[in-house]
Amino acid sequence: MPAKEIERLIGIFSTLPTMGPRSARRAVLSLLNQPKVRIEPMIQTLQEVLDKVQECPVCGNRDTNVPCSVCSDARRDKKQLCVVQDIADLWALERAGIFHGVYHVLGGVLSAINGVGPEELRISQLVERIQSGEVEEVILALPATVDGQTTAHYVAQRIEKYPVKLTTLARGVPVGGELDYLDDGTLQMALKSRRSL
Amino acid sequence: MPAKEIERLIGIFSTLPTMGPRSARRAVLSLLNQPKVRIEPMIQTLQEVLDKVQECPVCGNRDTNVPCSVCSDARRDKKQLCVVQDIADLWALERAGIFHGVYHVLGGVLSAINGVGPEELRISQLVERIQSGEVEEVILALPATVDGQTTAHYVAQRIEKYPVKLTTLARGVPVGGELDYLDDGTLQMALKSRRSL
Repeated sequence: MPAKEIERLIGIFSTLPTMGPRSARRAVLSLLNQPKVRIEPMIQTLQEVLDKVQECPVCGNRDTNVPCSVCSDARRDKKQLCVVQDIADLWALERAGIFHGVYHVLGGVLSAINGVGPEELRISQLVERIQSGEVEEVILALPATVDGQTTAHYVAQRIEKYPVKLTTLARGVPVGGELDYLDDGTLQMALKSRRSL
Repeated sequence: MPAKEIERLIGIFSTLPTMGPRSARRAVLSLLNQPKVRIEPMIQTLQEVLDKVQECPVCGNRDTNVPCSVCSDARRDKKQLCVVQDIADLWALERAGIFHGVYHVLGGVLSAINGVGPEELRISQLVERIQSGEVEEVILALPATVDGQTTAHYVAQRIEKYPVKLTTLARGVPVGGELDYLDDGTLQMALKSRRSL
């Protein structure tokens, strides 16, 4: 059996998403093949991330800059505020390079099953940002799941009294999507929201 | 875009087997959600593994003990020597708990394509162990691939002049295997090596 230090490392790796005990074992074995070359830079980079990366007090992104590089970028349009579930979704929008406003990371969605209420999310911070008056449009880019849409409705309710335009992402056929493979809900939405050519 | 430290960490994670850029991103994001709780123990355990785990000079296993816990276990039968490709295969045999001899890890298999020759593998160390006279049986537990079998033949040739019994793992129908799903080669082997009931 592997030494207890190796077992512990396999245990830690297997808690990562997309990893199970088997892939964790393979990952650790690959590190053990060249310990100096593989483990040392990993330790160093983990330490740097631990030391330097902080939560942005404005939007909830995580970055080495405080406020984060999006919030502190003078070229970003502070009037457009995009509300996302988590940092993964913020990164996805940034990778697409299509949005030039700023973000607000909720840190999750409301969920009765997982016991996530409004206090667990950064909703009151969002309301404060809107109260401050700089924001003109709030784009709700929340997941199209039941919990995501519940959250969107809740957020909309909380900010309806402020004079901001409230929008949400369009629903429809994904680019490159075959109608035959789409679910009924998406098809219905695409038909309902049809536009003139 | 994520900070360059985070990008670097994603890059390091994506070099692990079974991980790609996408799963590496998800892994790093899950660490960033609770940096203190998740990253600190990871750094500590990686450091322990780096400091304490060494290659066993006898068999090539990696362990905190030198020689490794298998080689230094007085209850193991030193007369039976099982030759494996890598530590993953050694662990697989140990998990099964069916072998009570000792191991010899080659560190790979011969491969013309990958430029792995006999010098890259721990074959001369194997010959030395056999020369020392303690070994009575060498079990070649190498993969049933072309490269694995080439290596098995090469190793067999190198040790044929020594008075040891040379065996290899049986070929046949895996336990729980359906004949219909087996490849022709395995079926042929299983028929050729049939045994009386």
